[in-house]
Amino acid sequence: MKKVPHRIYLSEEQMPKQWYNLRADMKEQPDPMLNPATMKPIEEADLYPIFCRELAHQEMDAQTRYVDIPEEVQEFYKMYRPSPLIRAYNLERALGTPARIYYKFEGNNTSGSHKLNSAVAQAYYAKQEGLEGLTTETGAGQWGTALAEACSFFHLPLTVYMVKVSYEQKPFRKAVIETFDGKVIPSPSNTTEAGRRILAENPNTGGSLGCAISEAVEKAVTTPGHRYVLGSVLNQVLLHQSIIGLESKAAMELVDEYPDVIIGCAGGGSNLGGLIAPFMQDKLLGKANPRIVAVEPASCPSLTRGRYAYDFCDTGRITPLARMYTLGCGFMPSANHAGGLRYHGMSPILSKLYHDGYMEAVSVEQSKVFEAAVQFAKEETILPAPESAHAIRAAIDEALKCKESGEAKTILFGLTGTGYFDMTAYNAYLSGQMIDYIPSDEELQKGFDQLPNVPEAR
Amino acid sequence: MKKVPHRIYLSEEQMPKQWYNLRADMKEQPDPMLNPATMKPIEEADLYPIFCRELAHQEMDAQTRYVDIPEEVQEFYKMYRPSPLIRAYNLERALGTPARIYYKFEGNNTSGSHKLNSAVAQAYYAKQEGLEGLTTETGAGQWGTALAEACSFFHLPLTVYMVKVSYEQKPFRKAVIETFDGKVIPSPSNTTEAGRRILAENPNTGGSLGCAISEAVEKAVTTPGHRYVLGSVLNQVLLHQSIIGLESKAAMELVDEYPDVIIGCAGGGSNLGGLIAPFMQDKLLGKANPRIVAVEPASCPSLTRGRYAYDFCDTGRITPLARMYTLGCGFMPSANHAGGLRYHGMSPILSKLYHDGYMEAVSVEQSKVFEAAVQFAKEETILPAPESAHAIRAAIDEALKCKESGEAKTILFGLTGTGYFDMTAYNAYLSGQMIDYIPSDEELQKGFDQLPNVPEAR
Repeated sequence: MKKVPHRIYLSEEQMPKQWYNLRADMKEQPDPMLNPATMKPIEEADLYPIFCRELAHQEMDAQTRYVDIPEEVQEFYKMYRPSPLIRAYNLERALGTPARIYYKFEGNNTSGSHKLNSAVAQAYYAKQEGLEGLTTETGAGQWGTALAEACSFFHLPLTVYMVKVSYEQKPFRKAVIETFDGKVIPSPSNTTEAGRRILAENPNTGGSLGCAISEAVEKAVTTPGHRYVLGSVLNQVLLHQSIIGLESKAAMELVDEYPDVIIGCAGGGSNLGGLIAPFMQDKLLGKANPRIVAVEPASCPSLTRGRYAYDFCDTGRITPLARMYTLGCGFMPSANHAGGLRYHGMSPILSKLYHDGYMEAVSVEQSKVFEAAVQFAKEETILPAPESAHAIRAAIDEALKCKESGEAKTILFGLTGTGYFDMTAYNAYLSGQMIDYIPSDEELQKGFDQLPNVPEAR
Repeated sequence: MKKVPHRIYLSEEQMPKQWYNLRADMKEQPDPMLNPATMKPIEEADLYPIFCRELAHQEMDAQTRYVDIPEEVQEFYKMYRPSPLIRAYNLERALGTPARIYYKFEGNNTSGSHKLNSAVAQAYYAKQEGLEGLTTETGAGQWGTALAEACSFFHLPLTVYMVKVSYEQKPFRKAVIETFDGKVIPSPSNTTEAGRRILAENPNTGGSLGCAISEAVEKAVTTPGHRYVLGSVLNQVLLHQSIIGLESKAAMELVDEYPDVIIGCAGGGSNLGGLIAPFMQDKLLGKANPRIVAVEPASCPSLTRGRYAYDFCDTGRITPLARMYTLGCGFMPSANHAGGLRYHGMSPILSKLYHDGYMEAVSVEQSKVFEAAVQFAKEETILPAPESAHAIRAAIDEALKCKESGEAKTILFGLTGTGYFDMTAYNAYLSGQMIDYIPSDEELQKGFDQLPNVPEAR
């Protein structure tokens, strides 16, 4: 085998020119989204008030296997991509494992994460259609930053509803979004019906992604020339994020490697769905059979403890219904510091694949996640985002299993971003103040009790 | 000419295996450091109480042209290097300039800057010598973070004296250093004689790099098994930082380019000295004649308004005397947000080259610097550190001159790092609260009046 360099970069010529649409190779499709008023499947045109047309089309298109990446988006990608595929030589040595650990690092841009991959696509299509502005929500702030970057580049006004707990924990995230001319509103807010309703019920809530989504959607559909964009969960987002997996696979091929295990953190599924896409294709087509592992926080365990059921994508119950693993759209996760993973549901595509046995899921406790984050930072010179550190935790555990068994497995994980805006959480961990929260069965049951009544799916 | 990719990376094989020592090609050497007690030139052994032996040797060695980079340091470099040389296509387009703008981006590591290049070398040599700990100072926090990363990797205890104004403006910088097990003390502090003296004179001072240096040096020489390390100014640091210029030159050769103008921000000179090294060699050897421009803050203008004189490297007046451009070691710069550029002096090597006419210098005001920073961030997806933004400002001005003259110059500038820990400053700029401070001639004269009495050099 060739000597593998620490960092493997594709050349510009080797960069993917098309995204890959996982649905085209799924034998069974995810259940269709439903209109909650009629309980009838949503059609593309039903989405036009929410999404711009091209994105509505991508959301519904399960047939087109490869979608051309627009030239302008390719050009933008070239500013920060290809992202490096990194061989974690120093982490391997520190663990004393025979495993070969690779990670795809998506943090080398100002948004600090992979979110920019979809943000630029969504901003581009919105600009193409002549829209006057976009609204969105952000949890950890990575998506908001990414979209602000993209909107600023294409000169599109942007309003960001930021989950209140993140808004308070991360004042500098807000400042970055504002640097890119984004307008930031802590959610829940009194700028929307949905926000006012949630505040009335629970004035001290720290908010949630689901609630911020309600506000952003409401604002978009009630403001002329505006549409809503979302950084995760959606099929279109997984399509755009397939660039992560396509680059990873191409880079591994350059060094004659193929992963035995692929590990990604899972909040709404944008990173995981993107990272695994071409490997899952191999699996669906019977060409290879890598293990695929989703890692979620024990405080918000949608895959490992949720129901596979129809649910609203937002807390305000105004979006279409999607069949997915969910804790119930009323579930309010504790103030876990990995804000990007505090979502009650999971990408319908990933939910279906998990339901059908194509992937595994594990949940990990916050303090164990930060332990892995600090170890990783010291060995690999990258300070990881708490979200990403969920994948690190699982990758380290996998590598330690290899140490016991003596197996030289090839492990690939997604390092979605950096933790420069998460120092409050690191501080809490380092000072021993971090609390691990695991919801009780009773607490989860409350969320399930509020699931909408779609009998065939419960 | 070939189509130049956005990002140009050297392969691992193409990475430099040696540092380049600029002094070996200088016809006239910088004046020797002097022992302030005897006014006699310092010899290598005089430095052993302060620096570990190999570094003391590198400090004094003006003969060896190329110095082998130790294998372990090369391996560490491979975790985050080669850094990309980036063609600023989008910035060029936004400016409408015929100039071709390239920047060498050193921010892709957790320290967020080029400082790691020398930190890993210094930590490595200290560990090799069997030292028990290191002390240092940090201004903006980038050097402290870099050294903490390096020390943590080599398992060496570290104490960091952090300039108080930065300590207060950047609480999260402190948290990052602590994540890497560094101990952080705000300077001036009461842990040293030097600190206590400065506090007694001026209890409310925000501190300065010069003052933090005094404390770190004192702590090192009074603690058994400890030495002091410094992230800028020193000859050894410029040697290690030559990796920036060597990589830049090699990457430009890959695309058949050679810079007409090379621009770097200048605080103590570590980035500028490293970036320009091989180009200055060409200039010294008569092989090429690029313009070389140092950019400093108008609030701390050591090159443009300072004296070329012997001075202490620290405020506490305990270090050897170096002949350099200086504002006087008693000069207390205003709370300019570019903490890394708030130093009263300048690398003796760069000072000599500037004095001999090999390079130019300009000073820029803070608000103009942040204007350039925001424009750059929006076009190039990288949020620059305020220090780096000084170079951006000058590069943009240079490119706009090309627009007027119609010249298609090739501009290279050093983008030393990212601004994730500088959002307080960005906030101040965005909210219109940023104040430009330019010291008066009278204020500068006070600093000059305190210069030590070395008659032949004043």
